[in-house]
Amino acid sequence: MTIQRPRGTRDFNPDDMVLRRKLEYLFRSTALSFGYHEVGTPTFEDAELFIRKSGPEIVDQLYIFQDKAERQLVLRPELTAPVIRFYASELYKLPKPLKIFYFGNCFRYERPQKGRYREFWQFGAELIGTNRSEGVAELVAFAWYCIKCVGIKNFELRLGNLEILKEILSTWDIFGTEQKDFFTALDKGDLDTLKLILEDSGRTPEDIQTFFTLVQTKFKIGELKERKISLLDHFPTLDKHLARFEEVAENIKMYNIMDFTIDFSIARGLDYYTGIVFEIDVESLGAEKQVCGGGEYSLDELFELTDTPTSGFAIGFDRVALAYGMEGLEKIENELDIFIIPFSKETLKKAIEISVSLRKAGFIVDMDIKGRNMSKNLKFASNRNATFAVFIGEDELESGSALVRAMSTGDQVKVGFSDLLEYFKKVI
Amino acid sequence: MTIQRPRGTRDFNPDDMVLRRKLEYLFRSTALSFGYHEVGTPTFEDAELFIRKSGPEIVDQLYIFQDKAERQLVLRPELTAPVIRFYASELYKLPKPLKIFYFGNCFRYERPQKGRYREFWQFGAELIGTNRSEGVAELVAFAWYCIKCVGIKNFELRLGNLEILKEILSTWDIFGTEQKDFFTALDKGDLDTLKLILEDSGRTPEDIQTFFTLVQTKFKIGELKERKISLLDHFPTLDKHLARFEEVAENIKMYNIMDFTIDFSIARGLDYYTGIVFEIDVESLGAEKQVCGGGEYSLDELFELTDTPTSGFAIGFDRVALAYGMEGLEKIENELDIFIIPFSKETLKKAIEISVSLRKAGFIVDMDIKGRNMSKNLKFASNRNATFAVFIGEDELESGSALVRAMSTGDQVKVGFSDLLEYFKKVI
Repeated sequence: MTIQRPRGTRDFNPDDMVLRRKLEYLFRSTALSFGYHEVGTPTFEDAELFIRKSGPEIVDQLYIFQDKAERQLVLRPELTAPVIRFYASELYKLPKPLKIFYFGNCFRYERPQKGRYREFWQFGAELIGTNRSEGVAELVAFAWYCIKCVGIKNFELRLGNLEILKEILSTWDIFGTEQKDFFTALDKGDLDTLKLILEDSGRTPEDIQTFFTLVQTKFKIGELKERKISLLDHFPTLDKHLARFEEVAENIKMYNIMDFTIDFSIARGLDYYTGIVFEIDVESLGAEKQVCGGGEYSLDELFELTDTPTSGFAIGFDRVALAYGMEGLEKIENELDIFIIPFSKETLKKAIEISVSLRKAGFIVDMDIKGRNMSKNLKFASNRNATFAVFIGEDELESGSALVRAMSTGDQVKVGFSDLLEYFKKVI
Repeated sequence: MTIQRPRGTRDFNPDDMVLRRKLEYLFRSTALSFGYHEVGTPTFEDAELFIRKSGPEIVDQLYIFQDKAERQLVLRPELTAPVIRFYASELYKLPKPLKIFYFGNCFRYERPQKGRYREFWQFGAELIGTNRSEGVAELVAFAWYCIKCVGIKNFELRLGNLEILKEILSTWDIFGTEQKDFFTALDKGDLDTLKLILEDSGRTPEDIQTFFTLVQTKFKIGELKERKISLLDHFPTLDKHLARFEEVAENIKMYNIMDFTIDFSIARGLDYYTGIVFEIDVESLGAEKQVCGGGEYSLDELFELTDTPTSGFAIGFDRVALAYGMEGLEKIENELDIFIIPFSKETLKKAIEISVSLRKAGFIVDMDIKGRNMSKNLKFASNRNATFAVFIGEDELESGSALVRAMSTGDQVKVGFSDLLEYFKKVI
């Protein structure tokens, strides 16, 4: 029986990989241009790292296994916890604010479906050591520019704020487990449970209606001022929180990001988010349209840190790659500049010599290594999308010049061996 | 208790990562320039894939685990088997020869030591569909250029040939398990066992001496002709094999690789190697000096392929990174072109506006997001190795120009906001 690829995983062929590496390059360039630095962590971690931090839903999806020394290990389901572990043990020595990013694979055991895989890639960033508005705004802008730089046109940034929701719940004496259940229900869009919790805590139908309006209405950033006034009417203690939220939003606009949405229904599913949260959707992806999520969080307790403000985001790399295809953006292909065809063992030496000098100059060069005939070689060069083919036969060897064929037109021209490099520098 | 990184694994800080991504970039560029295309496969595979193919030593080191559906999975210990699995199921449809490369992490449960980790990275390539001399020579040259392009000076390519050893053993009626044991002993340098096997098969002391000389003497490529004649004296049936070996060696020389070593002691440890084999050592690494190994192999049986000539190599990426440091090559650092310092909330908008235009032009730009005072900001910019600092205070806002400081000299110059982009294009 032939051996199969494990369920829920993927192989990537040359067309897939060239697109993925291009997107990775764009994300990395954007990160570097924002002054973020890359870090790396192991593919597996002590299982405790994720069991302590994650909700039960994620724990159920963990790939947990024992090594030969009976350590409980886990294939990482995400990268924020490993990065903060790394910070707590070593990176804390670096000057703050620390701006770091990562690109890596993660693993979740869930039912495979479109846009969801058991091994998937995340590109993400963490901003450590400041919770000032300009820092959080820069982080959000950085995430936005990642999606933008790929060329995706139809995407939406949504900004929310858990601090504001928590403040409202606090004024209503909804704390602890009850508050946690509330956010779990909000994350799932489970309105019945939300209503039940509010009723149980003795809220009036008017209160409940006001709150539901808040978390069910998305509005454009331009309306924030007006909405703020009406919110303050209902919840006067939100003053400070709303002022900060507005400041972050204003700072985001300074990055030429004028069109985004305020959405108080963003709960982010994980316990550790604390304040401003955000998500980015790409419309063309349909049901699985969210490509980015992040916000302010705290892992101080888990890592015995004191007062370390942190915020971050993760981008679902595979979904962005999917969106790239669905938006019909320019096809990224493996290029081949020059395909060299030597006709005999005697001409091979000259062919290799030319290939060495062309590659040294940065050209992508392939060569016949199967000893095929002319028509098969031309067919291969055409299949490989070669821009030029170069023939070197006995005649060419004698005359000291190669026959260069432009593959798209079939036009042929003789070019002296010593002039080939200059020739291709001009035409490619 | 704080959670530790798993034993034998590593975290990579920003200095590590910028070097690793640079090396990855150099390897990938070299691969592409040779007309190789990248592929990717999952991090874990069906355990059978490696159990069937690998010797017992590797099986002992496998990270095997069960998923929730009780599949036996394994973290890949190497990438050739996954790539050929991919070939057998899908890539076989592409035109031959197929030239593919990969860069990925692998896992072996072994005692951690310098240059050996439980998670390590391999860069490698497979050439599928030809066993002609020029193809194998191109593959060897490609591996050589990978090490060369990094800037490592003191490295040695060694070329061996299992076909020749197998032919000799065949003429002595050493086949099957006995031959396998022989190669295992050769791989380990276990001369006593080698001698025992030869004696058991009735070889004369002279035969044994001749064979030992062959596998114990390394010689430079320049001596191959002379050695060939003496080998043919002893083993006339080697004629065809030696001619092919010489042809491959001659083809390698055509790539301007003039100085390499012939070494018949290379056994490559794995059953599936068939013909020409090679290794590359970097002297500065000491005991763990081998950074590359490869050769001609066959996995036809494992994947139910018919007559598919394959050759390939893998480079130990971590060892190359280690060698880079040990050879004292140019330090690769995270660069920061410009650090912008706004002095107040009022100047922040202008600062962000400038950062957006500079980043768009490709500059690496960071900005104060902590609201620090001047001296702290300059210290931070200096720690981050910024080339320039740009101050924007109230005066600057009013006069329409920023104060630009060259961090290395302390020289300061006023530059109009609208001229900043052009200014930095000139000086950076």
